[in-house]
Amino acid sequence: MTTKDSMELWVKEIYQETFNLGFKIDRTLFSGKSRFQQIDVVKTKSHGVMLLNDGSIMLSERDEFIYHEMIAHVPLFVHPSPERVLVIGGGDGGTVREVLKHPKVKRVVMVEIDDMVIQACRIHLPAVSCALDDERLEIRIQDGIKYITEAGEKFDLVIVDSTDPIGPAVPLFDKPFYKGISAALDSDGILITQAGSTFYDGETQHAMLMNQRPFFKNLHLYLYSNLTYPGGLWSFGFASKGLCPIQDFDGRRVESSGIVTSYYNPGVHRSAFSLPNFVAENLASVIDPILV
Amino acid sequence: MTTKDSMELWVKEIYQETFNLGFKIDRTLFSGKSRFQQIDVVKTKSHGVMLLNDGSIMLSERDEFIYHEMIAHVPLFVHPSPERVLVIGGGDGGTVREVLKHPKVKRVVMVEIDDMVIQACRIHLPAVSCALDDERLEIRIQDGIKYITEAGEKFDLVIVDSTDPIGPAVPLFDKPFYKGISAALDSDGILITQAGSTFYDGETQHAMLMNQRPFFKNLHLYLYSNLTYPGGLWSFGFASKGLCPIQDFDGRRVESSGIVTSYYNPGVHRSAFSLPNFVAENLASVIDPILV
Repeated sequence: MTTKDSMELWVKEIYQETFNLGFKIDRTLFSGKSRFQQIDVVKTKSHGVMLLNDGSIMLSERDEFIYHEMIAHVPLFVHPSPERVLVIGGGDGGTVREVLKHPKVKRVVMVEIDDMVIQACRIHLPAVSCALDDERLEIRIQDGIKYITEAGEKFDLVIVDSTDPIGPAVPLFDKPFYKGISAALDSDGILITQAGSTFYDGETQHAMLMNQRPFFKNLHLYLYSNLTYPGGLWSFGFASKGLCPIQDFDGRRVESSGIVTSYYNPGVHRSAFSLPNFVAENLASVIDPILV
Repeated sequence: MTTKDSMELWVKEIYQETFNLGFKIDRTLFSGKSRFQQIDVVKTKSHGVMLLNDGSIMLSERDEFIYHEMIAHVPLFVHPSPERVLVIGGGDGGTVREVLKHPKVKRVVMVEIDDMVIQACRIHLPAVSCALDDERLEIRIQDGIKYITEAGEKFDLVIVDSTDPIGPAVPLFDKPFYKGISAALDSDGILITQAGSTFYDGETQHAMLMNQRPFFKNLHLYLYSNLTYPGGLWSFGFASKGLCPIQDFDGRRVESSGIVTSYYNPGVHRSAFSLPNFVAENLASVIDPILV
């Protein structure tokens, strides 16, 4: 929602009808309605360019590096040879930008349902979308569910870079989708899923992980920070057919990779899996303990 | 600032004139002007009772446990025998509530400049202020700077539970204050300081730690999350005369203590000192490396 407050333009997102985050904006760069959603790109005073889908803040230039580094490098530095990566959603391009920093990655398929997101980010968020023309990347404008059901291809890593489970994203949090992903993953496969706020989405997190549980040997949650989502403490799900995000992680691989990051490092990798008591207690019945 | 938006009451805090956090409120429980500041206590729809000083959100009932557990238990589980604790500020009582969970602690002095904060929290935030009548606690209504200059007493731990460096809190971030604290600390002494947002206060953090540097052998920053401060990723400074927050920490002491916490645990303790690259780079010239 964009409102004029005392002749100032602000973009404000209201959560659960009771609290909000707001950002003062210079101007709107793009506003369009696709078949799926309202898409807005605004220039904020403090956080650079910001993307909103249906009025929900997706990312800001100022801190998108945190989300995208953490969704990509954590699994890519756990998997011993991540060559084939599938990204569901992520039309802004930030996730594939980080994935493609890994020279081991030979092929990335990005399945984005809404071409308008890609086009808007290509024009207005070039620092985020800059890897969308990489020759290792195939972009498919398609429903992720349909792709997973029909694709015969195998992957080492699947990343679900989706919104929260509202609107068109709801089936991306359901059992049939996770079953399909499990079938598309090779024996060392990892699934990473956007898992919401540890504070405000505890029930959703639990339900999502319960839906993944039947199809994966190891199930974990890991944390990162976000400036433009409420409450700051956000999370990704880490599901695998056997790999452990701590025991199968060797920080020396990060250091010798030469990959430049602004948030991620070996200490941050390990620390992200240390859950506060209230989070661990909420998920105790569904996630696996980390054996250090 | 409390505003009426479409007949709804919201409390809104605007940061750097360009972004805000807002909370819908049921009603104002207390509003008073002390010699030092405007104090408001409101009942929010989503985050319980909230305390504001001069319009800045200090704490909410919903998440204050994170701040107070992290400011208190990290140093108390590093120091081998924390018997004497000085808290500067912290009139709401949350910090001393956590400090007094430790049976080793024999004496706590809380030096709060503004009695009205204490009185408002006694009435409207009983779950936070509940330990203010503990017989091990001495409350002094006094300027913390003056107390440090004049007190002859020695402490094992000093906690500066202050606002950001604005208004009356400015001298709490300056060299003479830290020099005085160093003199008041015993040989194993630890100083913990509220150190702001890693994102928005990078310069302030650097300046604060530079001011502590001459008086302490070890200097570190550690992280925690906050729902009612912007950006989520907030921090405390850890300064000591020799103790290392990781090498001198034994998680088994936490487990055998029987102390109940909702956020803090041994994994969270260690993880809090893993700094993201952009934070570590900002502070590289002033903090010490953590040797794991």
